[in-house]
Amino acid sequence: MPREHKRRGRGQSRTIAGIQQQPWKQPRNFYSPFEIASADQIEALHENSLRILAELGIAFLDDEALDILREHGAKVNYSSKMVKFSPELIEEYIAKAPSQFTLHARNPKHNLEVGKNWTLFSMVGSTPNCSDLDNGRRPGNFKDYQNLIRLAQHFNVIHMTGGYPVEPIDLPANTRHLDCAFTHLTLTDKVFHAYSLGKQRIADSIDMLCIGLGLTRKELKKQPSLISIINTSSPLRLDGVMIQGMLEMIRNGQSVCVTPFTLSGAMAPVTLAGALSLQNAEALATLAFTQMAAPGSPVIYGGFTSNVDMKSGAPAFGTPELAKSTLIGGQLARRYGLPYRASNVNASNTVDTQAGYESMMSLWPTIQSHCNFVKHAAGWLEGGLCASFEKVIVDVELLQMMSAFLDGLSFSADEMAFDAIADVGPGGHFFGTQHTLERYENAFYSPILSDWNNFGQWTENGSLDTTQRANKIWKQALSEYKNPPMDESTIEELEAFVAKRKEKPGISIHWK
Amino acid sequence: MPREHKRRGRGQSRTIAGIQQQPWKQPRNFYSPFEIASADQIEALHENSLRILAELGIAFLDDEALDILREHGAKVNYSSKMVKFSPELIEEYIAKAPSQFTLHARNPKHNLEVGKNWTLFSMVGSTPNCSDLDNGRRPGNFKDYQNLIRLAQHFNVIHMTGGYPVEPIDLPANTRHLDCAFTHLTLTDKVFHAYSLGKQRIADSIDMLCIGLGLTRKELKKQPSLISIINTSSPLRLDGVMIQGMLEMIRNGQSVCVTPFTLSGAMAPVTLAGALSLQNAEALATLAFTQMAAPGSPVIYGGFTSNVDMKSGAPAFGTPELAKSTLIGGQLARRYGLPYRASNVNASNTVDTQAGYESMMSLWPTIQSHCNFVKHAAGWLEGGLCASFEKVIVDVELLQMMSAFLDGLSFSADEMAFDAIADVGPGGHFFGTQHTLERYENAFYSPILSDWNNFGQWTENGSLDTTQRANKIWKQALSEYKNPPMDESTIEELEAFVAKRKEKPGISIHWK
Repeated sequence: MPREHKRRGRGQSRTIAGIQQQPWKQPRNFYSPFEIASADQIEALHENSLRILAELGIAFLDDEALDILREHGAKVNYSSKMVKFSPELIEEYIAKAPSQFTLHARNPKHNLEVGKNWTLFSMVGSTPNCSDLDNGRRPGNFKDYQNLIRLAQHFNVIHMTGGYPVEPIDLPANTRHLDCAFTHLTLTDKVFHAYSLGKQRIADSIDMLCIGLGLTRKELKKQPSLISIINTSSPLRLDGVMIQGMLEMIRNGQSVCVTPFTLSGAMAPVTLAGALSLQNAEALATLAFTQMAAPGSPVIYGGFTSNVDMKSGAPAFGTPELAKSTLIGGQLARRYGLPYRASNVNASNTVDTQAGYESMMSLWPTIQSHCNFVKHAAGWLEGGLCASFEKVIVDVELLQMMSAFLDGLSFSADEMAFDAIADVGPGGHFFGTQHTLERYENAFYSPILSDWNNFGQWTENGSLDTTQRANKIWKQALSEYKNPPMDESTIEELEAFVAKRKEKPGISIHWK
Repeated sequence: MPREHKRRGRGQSRTIAGIQQQPWKQPRNFYSPFEIASADQIEALHENSLRILAELGIAFLDDEALDILREHGAKVNYSSKMVKFSPELIEEYIAKAPSQFTLHARNPKHNLEVGKNWTLFSMVGSTPNCSDLDNGRRPGNFKDYQNLIRLAQHFNVIHMTGGYPVEPIDLPANTRHLDCAFTHLTLTDKVFHAYSLGKQRIADSIDMLCIGLGLTRKELKKQPSLISIINTSSPLRLDGVMIQGMLEMIRNGQSVCVTPFTLSGAMAPVTLAGALSLQNAEALATLAFTQMAAPGSPVIYGGFTSNVDMKSGAPAFGTPELAKSTLIGGQLARRYGLPYRASNVNASNTVDTQAGYESMMSLWPTIQSHCNFVKHAAGWLEGGLCASFEKVIVDVELLQMMSAFLDGLSFSADEMAFDAIADVGPGGHFFGTQHTLERYENAFYSPILSDWNNFGQWTENGSLDTTQRANKIWKQALSEYKNPPMDESTIEELEAFVAKRKEKPGISIHWK
């Protein structure tokens, strides 16, 4: 719960309520990764993936991509669009991808390391609906979009936005990306994401990023500042719009995260080994392609192999199967020396106990897989069909706890507390001892949402459940939100760019 | 959600609703334990604990215990009751404890392995209150006690009861243990627990166990069938009633789990290293004592080092600090080759999102610590002050998910699904393929509580949140509950024993 702290000024005493959140910090995971597959099992997945790519191939639905692939030694069938890769070709090009890179934010304090033992948490993305306790569930819209971006900016533990936190369907589809990029650049100074829906949209986002950061395209090329998710159209297919957006990203030095959407039982085999083999094959082929088109491009290996409910066909999240695939995905990414992406997901229709336990069923293995890029880390509900304002607050609590868990251990002689134990003696109490007083303020994780009052006090306070408390906190966060400063001239330049592009959008609306 | 399945008989078709739970199975954890402390750090904790025991000592508030300790080489001060141990003495006696043993149930199918990579889940224990959605929160009573025992018997994933699931304070304190043991023996055929509150209560439980199992005391001595938790009275103290109960247990071949109650910031140092050193010192001293009094006794190393809320002094559970101490506790137990106990706990006042995420924040590290005995695995709420009927169902879901997670991996050639992937081809669907049809029924974990319907279907079904659904399920479970059979003559003998003991309880009521 937010606590009150006092500030004194000019003879007055006033009480200022402030959410006492953790300071900005990008966590590093110094613990060993938790690995559930044996080295032999990882090699078996690897071999099976390479066999899929060598014998079956994968469809690249874009002729420019087919040319690039052929020129670099892949076997291309232009009529079926199928591309086959020898194992050596995959290994050769995957090896060109960096194992770590920096994502640059408008505010350099918010720059992010991607790879090795670094972790980062990004806001929920791409949901068609949003909801809160006061106004219920509604289709995505620009106002909610802006408020969710403000929450992502306000909470230090949310390190970047991750696409549109909700789809603003009240904006015209062919110019929506312009308003969204403008919002990303002005309401937050953290790293953001652009959708790879064809070349033009990415080109616009890059142009706007150059204005916002005050860089030329040539300068921007040297500092990855934008990220895009590349979803394969599983099984064994990569769509043309994705490819064109991806090419524009990597040719401009920007980063892409390749995430096959291999839902087991639907777009992927019903077995974990089969689904992971498919995920790995699709990721390897697409990542190898990035290194052919732009060697050294900053890329991420994405895992998203959950399963469907075999009764309804609905995707399930936060399942034991997802936990396993998330952990093994991390092992595969390390096998290739690539940064790894996973997610904080659940399938609940409301912010309740299931939302809490399914999120944790995905977040724990995500953290323990040494995931570098945790997507949908805050706000995801309904298997990704809804962004919840209350769930953002729940997830801020979970992410802060995980960050505290990753803070590691300190075993100095003083912390061994032998003298304190000797002083207190049998049956004594440590509460008021010097050893405690010196440390109590920062000794333990301090929650923003969890209520540790006893039942009587909790009842006196109104018996508010977690979701009701979260409702108060996101409103408080919005009231405390501060717009990150930007030069007036830069804002004007961005506005002018958007206005000019809106005159002649030049984008065919062939996506929903 | 419970599903309907049809059974046909005598030309009729009738629909029987049944909770489709997992079959009985004791999980084994074939994954590597997740270790966050380095070998050096574990040795530092070990050395610090031995130093505490050698230089400060620990108070054993029982003269018989002091005699045993002195006879076996410890330095005893009879006036202060303080006992000091040399490092060699601790190592010598700890080495006598078995690393694995069997707990025998009245129904041999429910026998349990304790130690190595075996895991078992026990019901919530020792709460003063209980609650459900219909009737709210109320003081513990015998009717709720019985119903909670029935739930523990009904759900296969709850492997044993763990003390009184709620304290039946409507029964007289001096004969309560007789009614409770009778209930444990007749309403469930799983392993149960007795409280070490002096010698007589344990002696009564053992006598009743002999009747229930049809064994002599001599025969029972060869098969551990009863377990008791020994809490130290931290810091550095062990109470007389605990000691006397413990002696009666181990002298009769029964098992004890020694769990220091080292809440960091209150009964233990505010630092993790200090609190764990104290936990370890108290556990080692008490466990070494068991092996002096009864060498080879089946014992368990218990960890329960959570922290207090430094603002209110209330204990917190499901914190990052508890996650760390749980994992390191497992490393210490393995250091000594002992079975390990941890818990599934939270501090929420109601079955809500916090209850879900805090439980998972303790359950994940518990599982990954290779915990052998998961106490309070189902039903715990309010930091242990309340047993919730709905939380039992939530936890059954969590435990079933963990059990499915521990099922491990199968990477047979057929599961690699190369042929299925080849058959489906690019852009196809796996839903109706032979490979899927052959496996879909058991391919994925199937929940009893989680609702994976889409928002529209969920709304049509009444928009029930997880707790409301859990409310229906525990009532259904009680209606499906079947009393495990027991000979009428055995029941009569137990009744006669209870009646006779009630005539002359012979227990001083010096405990609340």
